[in-house]
Amino acid sequence: LSPHPTRRRAMDAGGGEQLSLAAVRDQLIREEDSIVFALIERAKRPRNTPAYSAAAAGGSLAEFFVREAQAGHYQKPEDVPFFSQDLPPPVFPTKGHPKVLHPFASSVCVNDAIWKMYFNELLPLFTADGDDGNYAETVALDFACLQALSRRIHCGKYVAEVKFKDAPQDYSPPIRAKDTNALMNLLTFTAVEEKVKKRVEKKARIFGQNVTLEDSVGKQDGDACDSHCKVDPKVLSKLYDLWVMPLTKDVEVEYLLRHLD
Amino acid sequence: LSPHPTRRRAMDAGGGEQLSLAAVRDQLIREEDSIVFALIERAKRPRNTPAYSAAAAGGSLAEFFVREAQAGHYQKPEDVPFFSQDLPPPVFPTKGHPKVLHPFASSVCVNDAIWKMYFNELLPLFTADGDDGNYAETVALDFACLQALSRRIHCGKYVAEVKFKDAPQDYSPPIRAKDTNALMNLLTFTAVEEKVKKRVEKKARIFGQNVTLEDSVGKQDGDACDSHCKVDPKVLSKLYDLWVMPLTKDVEVEYLLRHLD
Repeated sequence: LSPHPTRRRAMDAGGGEQLSLAAVRDQLIREEDSIVFALIERAKRPRNTPAYSAAAAGGSLAEFFVREAQAGHYQKPEDVPFFSQDLPPPVFPTKGHPKVLHPFASSVCVNDAIWKMYFNELLPLFTADGDDGNYAETVALDFACLQALSRRIHCGKYVAEVKFKDAPQDYSPPIRAKDTNALMNLLTFTAVEEKVKKRVEKKARIFGQNVTLEDSVGKQDGDACDSHCKVDPKVLSKLYDLWVMPLTKDVEVEYLLRHLD
Repeated sequence: LSPHPTRRRAMDAGGGEQLSLAAVRDQLIREEDSIVFALIERAKRPRNTPAYSAAAAGGSLAEFFVREAQAGHYQKPEDVPFFSQDLPPPVFPTKGHPKVLHPFASSVCVNDAIWKMYFNELLPLFTADGDDGNYAETVALDFACLQALSRRIHCGKYVAEVKFKDAPQDYSPPIRAKDTNALMNLLTFTAVEEKVKKRVEKKARIFGQNVTLEDSVGKQDGDACDSHCKVDPKVLSKLYDLWVMPLTKDVEVEYLLRHLD
């Protein structure tokens, strides 16, 4: 019984301060697991809409919880606060992280879009209608989903930095011309995106199955048992297709547009 | 794309206020997934011991985080605070939960033992040596593990209640005699415990694999690829064998001993 070495993340550059595409990809793939786990955990609870209706005092329980819970985090470029205006100073001492991104990276943030997408579009797709009164637990589970999604999407800053470093000659002209469409085209690899969608769907199928000692492990590879999965695997490919990958590219474009400032 | 109905938990008795052994078992099995997910997530980070050394101001970062994070929770018998002396009043309105347990259930708590077990015994078994400076993230991941373990273990209150209701004639004599050993024997089913250990080990193998599009899904059923799992599956069976199941039975015994008061 000995622990395995943990995988290095993109920003844990250790000795060197070089980003590599391989390290960034490893991190993105690992974040997929976190997103799938978080959605499966949230799906334990029904919709619980009272947690989201604005209370008289202003703001919903979900907002209140996220404001409280985000204290102490957000010292890395991919950890972007949802409510930055009220953020208390960090309560934890922390080691400095290697500065591999441009200083303006911290101002690139699509959390408003993530928040709206999560509550308006995604939540109804993977939670059952209903109200069981467990609002505190529910919003804590929502926060885990929001954080995992936000971290994955804001890793786009690393992706953009690596891609720029690899081919400044390709990226500099559209950056200077502020040509968002040309940048978006440079950053879009349809075959890769199809692979990612298939992989997250497969992860939802594997991680969301009901494991019993009797079952053969192989059977969940088909669509036949998707109805037994804790989160419909198709929700994951849809989430990545419509929201995660487009928002990540928004982050990449926003980051790149200011790269030559 | 339509969400599946969520599974009912033991305490979400809905219309009736009857506990059933089947519902309690369902919840315990679902909590296994949460524990495995939480450990896999924590294993992303190395040991990060500075988060656990007592600071000059008194208490470690981990303690500080848990004290802060536990606000708003703990309104159900299986959600027991780690630091009850400083617990602020709940900030969230909540629906009342059906009272299926005796009122003294809330005083049954083994969180001190869980805390010590987690930091002294378990953490070194599934995290890599090292310090990457991500202390805030680390203690948040620890808290998720502690909460999942604590919830599972304190579900022993429901287990004990159901077992007592099913056979009061068996349990009442040792309760009156305060015969802890006899109660422990009544509550121990070695064959069931072996099955649970095998199942959590299998879950760690399935949920902790590195999913790729190329891999066949079936291959992770063997031991051959355990070294690629994010948490060694044997750590899970050991965790359940040495700590989770014994502590759950401690909760059951403590609950039962006061059942006829």
